[in-house]
Amino acid sequence: MSSSYGENIKLTIFGQSHSPAIGMTLEGIPAGESICMETLKRFLSRRAPGKNDWSTKRKEADEPEFLCGFINNTTCGAPITAIIRNTDTRKGDYESFSYIPRPGHADYTAFVKYGGFEDHSGGGHFSGRLTAPLCIAGGICKQLLMREGINIISRIKSIGPLEDSGDLDRSTAEKDFPVIDDGQGKLMQEYILWAKSRGDSVGGTIECVATGLPAGLGDPMFDGMENRISQIVFGIPAIKGIEFGAGFAAAKMTGSRNNDQFFIENGTVRTLTNHSGGILGGITNGMPLCFRVAVKPTPSIAVSQKSFDETTLKETELLIPGRHDPCIVPRAVPCVEAAAAVAIYDALLGRRKELNGNSGYSK
Amino acid sequence: MSSSYGENIKLTIFGQSHSPAIGMTLEGIPAGESICMETLKRFLSRRAPGKNDWSTKRKEADEPEFLCGFINNTTCGAPITAIIRNTDTRKGDYESFSYIPRPGHADYTAFVKYGGFEDHSGGGHFSGRLTAPLCIAGGICKQLLMREGINIISRIKSIGPLEDSGDLDRSTAEKDFPVIDDGQGKLMQEYILWAKSRGDSVGGTIECVATGLPAGLGDPMFDGMENRISQIVFGIPAIKGIEFGAGFAAAKMTGSRNNDQFFIENGTVRTLTNHSGGILGGITNGMPLCFRVAVKPTPSIAVSQKSFDETTLKETELLIPGRHDPCIVPRAVPCVEAAAAVAIYDALLGRRKELNGNSGYSK
Amino acid sequence: MSSSYGENIKLTIFGQSHSPAIGMTLEGIPAGESICMETLKRFLSRRAPGKNDWSTKRKEADEPEFLCGFINNTTCGAPITAIIRNTDTRKGDYESFSYIPRPGHADYTAFVKYGGFEDHSGGGHFSGRLTAPLCIAGGICKQLLMREGINIISRIKSIGPLEDSGDLDRSTAEKDFPVIDDGQGKLMQEYILWAKSRGDSVGGTIECVATGLPAGLGDPMFDGMENRISQIVFGIPAIKGIEFGAGFAAAKMTGSRNNDQFFIENGTVRTLTNHSGGILGGITNGMPLCFRVAVKPTPSIAVSQKSFDETTLKETELLIPGRHDPCIVPRAVPCVEAAAAVAIYDALLGRRKELNGNSGYSK
Amino acid sequence: MSSSYGENIKLTIFGQSHSPAIGMTLEGIPAGESICMETLKRFLSRRAPGKNDWSTKRKEADEPEFLCGFINNTTCGAPITAIIRNTDTRKGDYESFSYIPRPGHADYTAFVKYGGFEDHSGGGHFSGRLTAPLCIAGGICKQLLMREGINIISRIKSIGPLEDSGDLDRSTAEKDFPVIDDGQGKLMQEYILWAKSRGDSVGGTIECVATGLPAGLGDPMFDGMENRISQIVFGIPAIKGIEFGAGFAAAKMTGSRNNDQFFIENGTVRTLTNHSGGILGGITNGMPLCFRVAVKPTPSIAVSQKSFDETTLKETELLIPGRHDPCIVPRAVPCVEAAAAVAIYDALLGRRKELNGNSGYSK
Repeated sequence: MSSSYGENIKLTIFGQSHSPAIGMTLEGIPAGESICMETLKRFLSRRAPGKNDWSTKRKEADEPEFLCGFINNTTCGAPITAIIRNTDTRKGDYESFSYIPRPGHADYTAFVKYGGFEDHSGGGHFSGRLTAPLCIAGGICKQLLMREGINIISRIKSIGPLEDSGDLDRSTAEKDFPVIDDGQGKLMQEYILWAKSRGDSVGGTIECVATGLPAGLGDPMFDGMENRISQIVFGIPAIKGIEFGAGFAAAKMTGSRNNDQFFIENGTVRTLTNHSGGILGGITNGMPLCFRVAVKPTPSIAVSQKSFDETTLKETELLIPGRHDPCIVPRAVPCVEAAAAVAIYDALLGRRKELNGNSGYSK
Repeated sequence: MSSSYGENIKLTIFGQSHSPAIGMTLEGIPAGESICMETLKRFLSRRAPGKNDWSTKRKEADEPEFLCGFINNTTCGAPITAIIRNTDTRKGDYESFSYIPRPGHADYTAFVKYGGFEDHSGGGHFSGRLTAPLCIAGGICKQLLMREGINIISRIKSIGPLEDSGDLDRSTAEKDFPVIDDGQGKLMQEYILWAKSRGDSVGGTIECVATGLPAGLGDPMFDGMENRISQIVFGIPAIKGIEFGAGFAAAKMTGSRNNDQFFIENGTVRTLTNHSGGILGGITNGMPLCFRVAVKPTPSIAVSQKSFDETTLKETELLIPGRHDPCIVPRAVPCVEAAAAVAIYDALLGRRKELNGNSGYSK
Repeated sequence: MSSSYGENIKLTIFGQSHSPAIGMTLEGIPAGESICMETLKRFLSRRAPGKNDWSTKRKEADEPEFLCGFINNTTCGAPITAIIRNTDTRKGDYESFSYIPRPGHADYTAFVKYGGFEDHSGGGHFSGRLTAPLCIAGGICKQLLMREGINIISRIKSIGPLEDSGDLDRSTAEKDFPVIDDGQGKLMQEYILWAKSRGDSVGGTIECVATGLPAGLGDPMFDGMENRISQIVFGIPAIKGIEFGAGFAAAKMTGSRNNDQFFIENGTVRTLTNHSGGILGGITNGMPLCFRVAVKPTPSIAVSQKSFDETTLKETELLIPGRHDPCIVPRAVPCVEAAAAVAIYDALLGRRKELNGNSGYSK
Repeated sequence: MSSSYGENIKLTIFGQSHSPAIGMTLEGIPAGESICMETLKRFLSRRAPGKNDWSTKRKEADEPEFLCGFINNTTCGAPITAIIRNTDTRKGDYESFSYIPRPGHADYTAFVKYGGFEDHSGGGHFSGRLTAPLCIAGGICKQLLMREGINIISRIKSIGPLEDSGDLDRSTAEKDFPVIDDGQGKLMQEYILWAKSRGDSVGGTIECVATGLPAGLGDPMFDGMENRISQIVFGIPAIKGIEFGAGFAAAKMTGSRNNDQFFIENGTVRTLTNHSGGILGGITNGMPLCFRVAVKPTPSIAVSQKSFDETTLKETELLIPGRHDPCIVPRAVPCVEAAAAVAIYDALLGRRKELNGNSGYSK
């Protein structure tokens, strides 16, 4: 079903950009796991809008209210539901172009699919705002994974034509603008502001790495780690591509160069390179799982665009008012981490079914 | 479940490279659809091995036997099951390195996952051979889609560093080596043979386009067309990346350039460009649906590689005998088409639930 | 997943008896369906507690707050989420026997499953209170079905040894104590009060009938109407049996008596009897769909019972304080209707996939 | 999807009564489990037709051919597919009444659902013959459960009005006519033959018990053991009712009598009675899981019945030729066991996800 994800846990996301509330239900988290709410809030704040010059001015506390699933911040086995009230909604911004679809947005496809009954305020259920509940679920899974020694980190890999350099490590996560090369980060921010000054927007890429993974997560064919991660990551609006390990670069290599040869280090199997991104046959091999996604430039721009009236099929010019991010890449970083965390935690639970747990049964 | 795919139809693929047979079950195809078996066989022959210099010498007729689901080549509503017998199996080729995992293959991850009980002959369930049943399912769906005016075509977009040019149209599908620029195609084939002569292999990219799609297929969030197509496409071994429309190139554009502006042509909504690849908010917009995948170079190469013995964790050198493709890209082209056909037909059936079919009920 | 149901729609229920709120998310309802909130509230009030002598004194307005999915009471295609705040919670009632499982309740099995981390206040996620969100979903589906001429009605078929007589029709639904024979209904109520006066409880059976169904709903094997309805109905606590049509009585008949012979009435296929309960091969045949469920007596009783301490495995006597229904059958009637409505509406949407809707596509 | 079942394993059943073959695919069985093929065949032979006076004369060896999933009778982690060839098919028997639906069969509903394209030979996909693949899957799961100390046994509880007495134990399983009271069994067989002599048929009930289950299997709400078992059991044709523990009898008891009070025996939690059938809140409590199903009399009878022509809607009389069981209850016994085995093994794997398996990971 469209707004649900997962095989061993089940995430359901609900809400529209301007409905009374948005939220999520997360089923299948084992009982007895304590969640640090402060850590969760800190994670959510990485996605929150209104913090700086390049993100939308809409201010939402994004404070989740947990309706069920916890006893004293410890999971009790029942589904976890959290909601976030939509307080700072300004529906008026959207009324003027209700039936004039914004290019690059889902307005027109929502109109076709829902026959004009869709909620077009702020993108309705298609809004980037729906990544907030994704981050609640991901923030919970990140804590559970951390407990098993698994870390998920990510960074801005590029903004427009500007690339970050170096290799991703955990220090990046603490930064407001998560790049390794802060000088390059500075340039990226300037590039975003330049686009903003022209009423335009820019895209970029995000790199995400999970370390500490055991070998053996994921399944062959349609439930491989690539399949699982793609399925959730494309749920983040504006993502148009994903590659694992060397990805598209692998397509240009020879096999002798692309193959990751094995060696043994302290009794552990490792590979000399990691072009596979830690995934072979859909299954983790114990090396860091690594992927990159392409984020398109924010479709809401302040320049005039060609569109049409859905009710008359007459062409028209469209000027979009309202508050928008000239670049959503920085705010999408924790969303990608969250998506990866949910997918990986789901695979981790799935792996337990295979491991012989007989002795654990109380008869 | 790992070897199953689909929401409105359900495809299940079974078999190992050297098991008595491989096959597929396809549930949920409406009754009364006649399938042309000749067209299906022609489609399957595009994937079949042993046809030319660059593909494996293993000869398999790949003739499917339908066990059920059809009455006189017309679907009867029951699940369709087809099998292909594995006749030309040479298990001996694999015995020498049973416990020495081949770099770039799933040998090691299968060993971890299945604890040494996995079938390692020819890659077992991870073998590219399992794309034959995928092509049976896809070939059936392609015929059903054609009936609704939907065509799925594809081509080799690049081999190693060599790019095809031009725009994809239906004529490409008839070619043995499906590129638009045949001169460039010639170079690509030479490049493959050069790699083969060195015991090496090469990768490439494949482009796939679906035309004639109605607007409104797919769902928001985790069931968008990108999510659905990715989930099945990564089920094809060796695919390491996917991008829709402009994909990774969109990440370098500004919004004003990337946005596809609307116009009306003969009462139909169209866009001036198609950077979205025909998908907005996960839902088709009526423009051609377009995506590209990255195929890594075949991991089976004839040069010596570093590996280890799974039973002793001792490092060792590995030389792989047997028959392998120096480049699987040409044979992967129909597999990508097949995967797209299954995903799109599934979405098409899902769309019917939303359209008001009340009058159709017999009470 | 445990708290989710459905193939073409997806119902997710969340909450615990004493968590801040309980609620449900319902995905997949087509856009453009208007829901009468007054009718929905009237339906929910049939389940609400505190109305009479035999139901728990706990008073809950059971007023759902819709968080999303509607624009002016019309579905917009996005998931529908509704919550009910838990206001009249008295956790203290349960503290005295937190680790002493109540016989007939899920206390002990929840303890084993969740390792002591479960929410044992009022049964937590296992509470009958969770049928309120089920009734929200069912109330919505009932309205959608009504629009297609499908009515779902039900009655108390028996309380303890006392049986209702006559055939079910729509007038029963309007009654506070839904039986056909009001004289018998009076006896049943006296029987309940007699049990209450002794600190005991009684069970009963409920009959549910859906009329106006088209033939052709449901699928063979594991997705037949019997399978689908059972799967959701056993989600209502205290239900321990279900039978369709003649059910267990059919097991005593001969084939010549049990078979429903066909006749044609005004061009419509009908059967002389309806021992099949309107279902053949899992699929509706156009006759009324009919089933009965067995409801066990409320396990919470005021008499002393043998139990044990989960932390010490020492046996002990248990006396349960708190407010409980001496008979939940009357309040379970709308829950069974709700469950049937969800299952039947799901099957109705599934049927649309098969009907040829080609002409409906906008290209 | 209709012909698939399971959450942690996935069973897919395919085939029609007279298609070239029938079969099943079973995904998700952990690797390294060895299956005794002799034991499996012995189990299948309990369902096989043609053995005695009251079952159909159609002779099928019912010998499964395994196409994949095993290496030397040990699971390798890949999906297991087995097929049974349909050899003794006599399509002619059915041709005379192709468009005259047999009362009590799925002929008419299949016609509506599949629009006349259905396979009506021998009931097509609705045939009782499709329980043979169910028994393959169930026979495998029974062996896996046995390994964990879990036994599934069953018996004929009644034939028509004749009831078996006593309590079910393992010795019954070895009998050709599985009842406890052989004298009563003799009467039952005479009753079946009496019905046969009149061209009629009889129904009955089957009781199934699983012993040795750990507490904690199953989930609340829609994935309880009652829900899971019902969902698969109603996949067996002719079953019209199911009850767990005291079932419908519980509806006549008071709470003080129905509640199963606890005691401790050798440090193990037990209950004085087992009216719950070993399931509380959908979850096993460690007592034997017990249920009964109602099997309707075989609808194929030799007496004339009223029907109609589907193509003309004209009423007609129908006389059914062919070979049929006057009572399918004896052959349904292993099918019910098989269904229970699949459901319980699925729940057992699901339980492993919750048990802390951290130490089992190889990093």
